[in-house]
Amino acid sequence: MATPRQMKLGAFLMTDGHHVAAWRHPDGRPDANVSLDHFVRLARLAEAAAFDALFLADSSGVRDTAVASLSHTSRAVGFEPLTLLSALSAVTERIGLVATASTSFNEPYNLARKFASLDLLSGGRAGWNLVTSSSEAEAQNFNAERHAAHADRYDRAREFAEVVSGLWNSWEDDAFVRDRDSGLFFDPGKLHVLHHHGRHFRVRGPLNVARSAQGHPVIVQAGSSEAGRELAAATAEAIFTAQATLEEAQAFYADVKGRLARYGRDPDHLKIMPGVFPVVGRTEEEAQEKFAILQERIHPVVGLSLLGTTLGGADLSGHDVDGPLPDLPETNGPKSRQKLLIERARRDALTIRELYLAIAGARGHWQVVGTASQIADQLEERFRGGGADGFNVMAPHLPGGLEDFIAGVVPELRRRGLFRDAYEGRTLREHLGLPRPAHRAPRPQPRAAAE
Amino acid sequence: MATPRQMKLGAFLMTDGHHVAAWRHPDGRPDANVSLDHFVRLARLAEAAAFDALFLADSSGVRDTAVASLSHTSRAVGFEPLTLLSALSAVTERIGLVATASTSFNEPYNLARKFASLDLLSGGRAGWNLVTSSSEAEAQNFNAERHAAHADRYDRAREFAEVVSGLWNSWEDDAFVRDRDSGLFFDPGKLHVLHHHGRHFRVRGPLNVARSAQGHPVIVQAGSSEAGRELAAATAEAIFTAQATLEEAQAFYADVKGRLARYGRDPDHLKIMPGVFPVVGRTEEEAQEKFAILQERIHPVVGLSLLGTTLGGADLSGHDVDGPLPDLPETNGPKSRQKLLIERARRDALTIRELYLAIAGARGHWQVVGTASQIADQLEERFRGGGADGFNVMAPHLPGGLEDFIAGVVPELRRRGLFRDAYEGRTLREHLGLPRPAHRAPRPQPRAAAE
Ligand SMILES: Cc1cc2nc3c(=O)[nH]c(=O)nc-3n(C[C@H](O)[C@H](O)[C@H](O)COP(=O)(O)O)c2cc1C
Ligand SMILES: Cc1cc2nc3c(=O)[nH]c(=O)nc-3n(C[C@H](O)[C@H](O)[C@H](O)COP(=O)(O)O)c2cc1C
Repeated sequence: MATPRQMKLGAFLMTDGHHVAAWRHPDGRPDANVSLDHFVRLARLAEAAAFDALFLADSSGVRDTAVASLSHTSRAVGFEPLTLLSALSAVTERIGLVATASTSFNEPYNLARKFASLDLLSGGRAGWNLVTSSSEAEAQNFNAERHAAHADRYDRAREFAEVVSGLWNSWEDDAFVRDRDSGLFFDPGKLHVLHHHGRHFRVRGPLNVARSAQGHPVIVQAGSSEAGRELAAATAEAIFTAQATLEEAQAFYADVKGRLARYGRDPDHLKIMPGVFPVVGRTEEEAQEKFAILQERIHPVVGLSLLGTTLGGADLSGHDVDGPLPDLPETNGPKSRQKLLIERARRDALTIRELYLAIAGARGHWQVVGTASQIADQLEERFRGGGADGFNVMAPHLPGGLEDFIAGVVPELRRRGLFRDAYEGRTLREHLGLPRPAHRAPRPQPRAAAE
Repeated sequence: MATPRQMKLGAFLMTDGHHVAAWRHPDGRPDANVSLDHFVRLARLAEAAAFDALFLADSSGVRDTAVASLSHTSRAVGFEPLTLLSALSAVTERIGLVATASTSFNEPYNLARKFASLDLLSGGRAGWNLVTSSSEAEAQNFNAERHAAHADRYDRAREFAEVVSGLWNSWEDDAFVRDRDSGLFFDPGKLHVLHHHGRHFRVRGPLNVARSAQGHPVIVQAGSSEAGRELAAATAEAIFTAQATLEEAQAFYADVKGRLARYGRDPDHLKIMPGVFPVVGRTEEEAQEKFAILQERIHPVVGLSLLGTTLGGADLSGHDVDGPLPDLPETNGPKSRQKLLIERARRDALTIRELYLAIAGARGHWQVVGTASQIADQLEERFRGGGADGFNVMAPHLPGGLEDFIAGVVPELRRRGLFRDAYEGRTLREHLGLPRPAHRAPRPQPRAAAE
């Protein structure tokens, strides 16, 4: 009998939690962003619950340059994801370790190597969340005045992914014979030198890291533009995404899965995992109270800044938060979201504070506030209804929010046969139900392809 | 009473050992280069002996492109140092963690960030061994046909170190107030944005990692050319170096320490640690036997390749290893070493095999073969004789060679008061006797400095 399809679950470890005021939570740890033991505890918690993976976002710099609001959040500093996950690889056994890293601010050789190394350190549990990054502030840490145009970033990203994948195929799985008697360490016929000559990169290879138990790290993708979806269809094995409603989730799911056939790929070999921001209570009322603990702690300067960003970069500083939204000049942010929000403010006569509270919780991700069984219902609906293969759990605050999810929602999902009781496999690919990639010798490229 | 001056000891973890045939040692682990548990064992061994630091070399690629000899060594693949040390940071408490990383193939923001992150993960135990790299094969993994010229590499390295150091000063030590009640996370006045505009780099900052218990990672340097020494005098806090004889060591030591005054630096704030390759036996005879176990296992194709490289790139393949050294065409390698070796071969009528065995052991580093007390004598002589502040112990094979050193030589050094019995401090700086750097606000540079 075939095993029924089960959800994949990622634990998105946003340091002290996904909620912008999480660091002020009475049970929280304001020093979470410099405390390895905080992350060790979270990793063990998620691993004990048999989560597929830990997931870390990344930013190659401090994105927010408005110091007044930034200084009222805990987001300016934190561990770098690859070093943190490497540390966690030594104190965990099974859970997957997915780090975000940008194709815009790295060299493919360095990135391929570090992820391959993490993959070996962890016994085949690494994943790379490929992003192209979208902030100017990051670009300014890498010799640029402004970030490259969207299309150029994706052009670089495509070639970057190709180089990384080629480097991960430098050595066949059984290349290393390690024969002490004859003195032969590897079979020269099983070494493949890449010789990549492309538009953005020129990389000889081979990689100086061997393949891992899962072949190579799982490729995750998080861009959702047309170019991002297409790159995901071509190369990604999991997608981390943000859809607030069931309809949006279904549309995204159908669209991306529908693109795989053109690349000769099985739609089941790309797992789509939207983010979910769950606030779990024993009663609905308790859940709302838990949410309020966080909402009340959003400092007005932070709320104004979040709202301003959502309104396309409007500067709201100086306005009375308990007064109405002022008339705003046109900005060049995303128009539709901006318009909807302004209409809502006018219609419901919301104050600025009410308006920023309405958007500040999950910030664009799917927010579910309720009992464990209500939340399980909603996850099940999206999972069975063609909206998701699993979810990236964005605990509002940590460790509390993750503990609540594990104590309440996970058992409920298990009762319904929707989530595993224990790990069956050892590698991240095995957890996710992804095939182990056979070694694919890189095709040497003719020099002409360089121009 | 002042504590008498004591040696610093680093454990250079060259995967299976510094000897090129170490992987074939009967007690060795041919799979050392893919086994985290091997390194965990080594780290704990060195930490139990109160070594100052673990030290990892690095190469941004497979340097040796001659596959016939490469395939008879274990050097082509291994863990990437920063990921490996991050993993080890989670399973050690006190020992320093020094990784090599190149200024030629990294971006300063990424490097500053990863080392700062390791420094925080480990509670202030990180060190960065700055190298400029010298192999073409590495450069070819980073969009270049050939490596940049020596002077240009050092010009970049100087500016690179300046940027890294500036980024490590982005936040004052007490910037993070984390006041849950007021909602203020950091004091905006204690954030310093770098705004670096230089010849090679343009980096806005600030770094998105806080300072650590030791301020920032210890800067180590390993280049020994004129430019390398000068860079060390200006910026390094430790030097890892290679001197085969006492006289060379003394000359190097006096030269480098003599340069510090010009930078207003205390010579004691730069620790000079030559490598030492020790083969320890209960008797001299046993030590020689231990050495022979390794020497016998050098595959001729590897021996020929090592000799060819030492002779400035000569191709000796095809020559009878038990015959004499053939006449060699001129190469453009280092002339003096080449000439000495050829003269020696002629004078002593050495075969090719005898000649490669003579150079294959420590490969340019200081080789000591003897009893624990003989080795301690020699270390003491260099330490007291103005040749070293400590040593980087390059165990011939691992873990055996390190175990021998710790069981034999370390107690002997302790009896003489030359090495600590246990850690007194917690950070790498404390172990090395280096001052904790006070926060130094980066000076904003005028744009004009960019050209
Ligand atoms: C759910 C989600 C999570 C993301 N996480 C990150 C991240 O951690 N770091 C980052 O630089 N970009 C992140 N991104 C941004 C994108 O991956 C992408 O680089 C950017 O949005 C531009 O691509 P796009 O236009 O295709 O969306 C994330 C995007 C989504 C939808
Ligand atoms: C003892 C010692 C160890 C070194 N270790 C490394 C290393 O691990 N990786 C590397 O790329 N270069 C290493 N180097 C090379 C140098 O640091 C330097 O980049 C290169 O030799 C050119 O500098 P120089 O001309 O000043 O010596 C080492 C050099 C010495 C002397």
